[in-house]
Amino acid sequence: MNSTTSMAEGGSGGVITCKAAVAWAAGEPLVIEEVQLSPPGPLEIRIKIVSTSLCRSDLTAWLSEAQPQLFPRIFGHEASGVVESVGHEVTEFEEGDHVLTLFTGECMSCRHCASGKSNICQVLGLERQGLMHSDKRTRFSVKGNPIYHYCAVSSFSEYTVVHSGCAVKISSNAPLEKICLLSCGVAAGLGAAWKVANISKGSTVVIFGLGTVGLSVAQGAKLRGASHIIGVDTNPEKSEKGKAFGVTNFLNPNDYDQPIQQVIHQMTDGGADYAFECVGDTGLITTALQSCCSGWGLTVTLGVPKDKPEIAAHYGLFLSGRTLTGSLFGGWKPKSELPLLVDKYLEKEIEIDGYITHNLMFEDINKAFDLMRQGQCLRCVIHMPK
Amino acid sequence: MNSTTSMAEGGSGGVITCKAAVAWAAGEPLVIEEVQLSPPGPLEIRIKIVSTSLCRSDLTAWLSEAQPQLFPRIFGHEASGVVESVGHEVTEFEEGDHVLTLFTGECMSCRHCASGKSNICQVLGLERQGLMHSDKRTRFSVKGNPIYHYCAVSSFSEYTVVHSGCAVKISSNAPLEKICLLSCGVAAGLGAAWKVANISKGSTVVIFGLGTVGLSVAQGAKLRGASHIIGVDTNPEKSEKGKAFGVTNFLNPNDYDQPIQQVIHQMTDGGADYAFECVGDTGLITTALQSCCSGWGLTVTLGVPKDKPEIAAHYGLFLSGRTLTGSLFGGWKPKSELPLLVDKYLEKEIEIDGYITHNLMFEDINKAFDLMRQGQCLRCVIHMPK
Ligand SMILES: [Zn+2]
Ligand SMILES: [Zn+2]
Ligand SMILES: [Zn+2]
Ligand SMILES: [Zn+2]
Repeated sequence: MNSTTSMAEGGSGGVITCKAAVAWAAGEPLVIEEVQLSPPGPLEIRIKIVSTSLCRSDLTAWLSEAQPQLFPRIFGHEASGVVESVGHEVTEFEEGDHVLTLFTGECMSCRHCASGKSNICQVLGLERQGLMHSDKRTRFSVKGNPIYHYCAVSSFSEYTVVHSGCAVKISSNAPLEKICLLSCGVAAGLGAAWKVANISKGSTVVIFGLGTVGLSVAQGAKLRGASHIIGVDTNPEKSEKGKAFGVTNFLNPNDYDQPIQQVIHQMTDGGADYAFECVGDTGLITTALQSCCSGWGLTVTLGVPKDKPEIAAHYGLFLSGRTLTGSLFGGWKPKSELPLLVDKYLEKEIEIDGYITHNLMFEDINKAFDLMRQGQCLRCVIHMPK
Repeated sequence: MNSTTSMAEGGSGGVITCKAAVAWAAGEPLVIEEVQLSPPGPLEIRIKIVSTSLCRSDLTAWLSEAQPQLFPRIFGHEASGVVESVGHEVTEFEEGDHVLTLFTGECMSCRHCASGKSNICQVLGLERQGLMHSDKRTRFSVKGNPIYHYCAVSSFSEYTVVHSGCAVKISSNAPLEKICLLSCGVAAGLGAAWKVANISKGSTVVIFGLGTVGLSVAQGAKLRGASHIIGVDTNPEKSEKGKAFGVTNFLNPNDYDQPIQQVIHQMTDGGADYAFECVGDTGLITTALQSCCSGWGLTVTLGVPKDKPEIAAHYGLFLSGRTLTGSLFGGWKPKSELPLLVDKYLEKEIEIDGYITHNLMFEDINKAFDLMRQGQCLRCVIHMPK
């Protein structure tokens, strides 16, 4: 332990007192507080966070007045770290292991995990109540009062406790301050392109929303040899960034009088082979479907809409051969497959560094929220005190 | 030529005067009229219809006040017959060939036909204007006035003219009075189960609507070894018929206080692997999606809704791994693949006869419309005068 953290009780296995960025209310700046963190329970591990990046889902959940008011809360779900201690019955991790956190876990044994067809674990799937999966309680507290978790990860803290199914051991050669991006956004985009859509060489692809996820779809499409990668974004600054990740044609809907799906139909001679909705807007899911070609056009929805959860689409879009599907974490089985993506990064087969537009110290975490809110970043990586 | 038809002008290749069932206005009984039928134009063939069955799409188009009022019109698109004469440039048919008509054709050369991925021909696809694809004119007339076609087939006539891409030559051993059902409904259901959904052994299937198409999905599911085939219909008489085609559990939504998707979730321990909407009701497409399991649940929509063309569905259904797709004519490439289905019937690998609940003479064609309107038939086969 170094000077920035202190043990409130005993050594390894005891409660840790450490610094965490606590959200006290929707949209209010986080406050770095001294919090207490329980030791890992059975099948849990405690992780010293090394780097954690801000993902749009954190921002959306923090801002939203519509969602259940789970405050105080510790956000953060895209992170790398080192195992500090392990709970009973944990056999796959030991102190010192390098890990990525998983906002959707893998128990390896439920019907879905066993299926080979789904990465939606029925036991350790997306946690929405701000609690731990196992006992529906929290591990954090401040002055004796519980602090809610986020996605059962809560990485905006020097230390966190996660279920052992919600972390994955990775190569100790990988730079933790970069590959934290594979914990959510970059992996989500690559997987949507490769595993969910299975983009084929020479095909046409349209991507709505050129944030980190959309630009990772673009990277995935480029690596598969797509002939046209059309990026759609209302922010003109995304044009340059798009090119860097493989976008061949940038479209700003504000530049056109016609509906953008018509422009895309003209550019692609009848519609794209694949469309990806990476904004989180159900109206754009409809637009994406309309931008695809009949016969085999596939639309993949990746975003989590902030409002209007209902998608509306004319039945004829489907009857004429279009398909709509969803992609949660790019279809990756996180424990089984994420280490391979880390290895691809080490072998320079995929790029990550270009998504990192800002590196911030932990105490400046609110700046990351500001930058993302203003659309001025892709990924801000927050570096925890060493 | 026999006594029930007469040639108005010349011999083979001239205009034919024959009997056709003409719809003069929406919902009004058809009238059997003497009509004039042009000789086949370039790349067209003229067919002597042997048998034609009534499909729900005919009924819907005939009843609908909402659709464009294309009257007078000759309906019918599920038919078998014998080639009477061929137009210029036709090389694949000759007089005497046994054929099935195709309401969605196959030109063999457009981007979709050439793709190997789509049966939605861009040249000879579903015709909605009541005209022939090639010249946007009609081939039928009555007292000098044109009569609209239906799906560019119009089989409720002793003779009809179709594009050579809208018919397929089949084995001359096949009984034309039975296999006309493969021209639309039975093939549509089998293809949805086999080609579009690709149902796997041991899986659970739910089918909304146990008409001919739904019961053909059931037959397809049974032949693939599905473990549970749940049939949903508000008509209690469909329970027995369903069993005959493989339905293992019949559900009448009127028998339950709970929403039927909840009942299905309980029966299937979390949702069906596959759901098929065979009614043509966009609300039921939503219910079908909700009846599928997360992770890999696939919903296939086959029906053409009579009203409310917009499908509404919560984005979370997709993000948690469900997929929605459509099936037009079961995904079959009609020219390339329908002859194989006819052969399967001849080898007793698939059943057709059980869908034929009524055999009617041409002059009784209005009885078929009455029976279908009242839900008292599966398929009425109308036998043309010999
Ligand atoms: Zn994320
Ligand atoms: Zn699991
Ligand atoms: Zn039909
Ligand atoms: Zn074609």
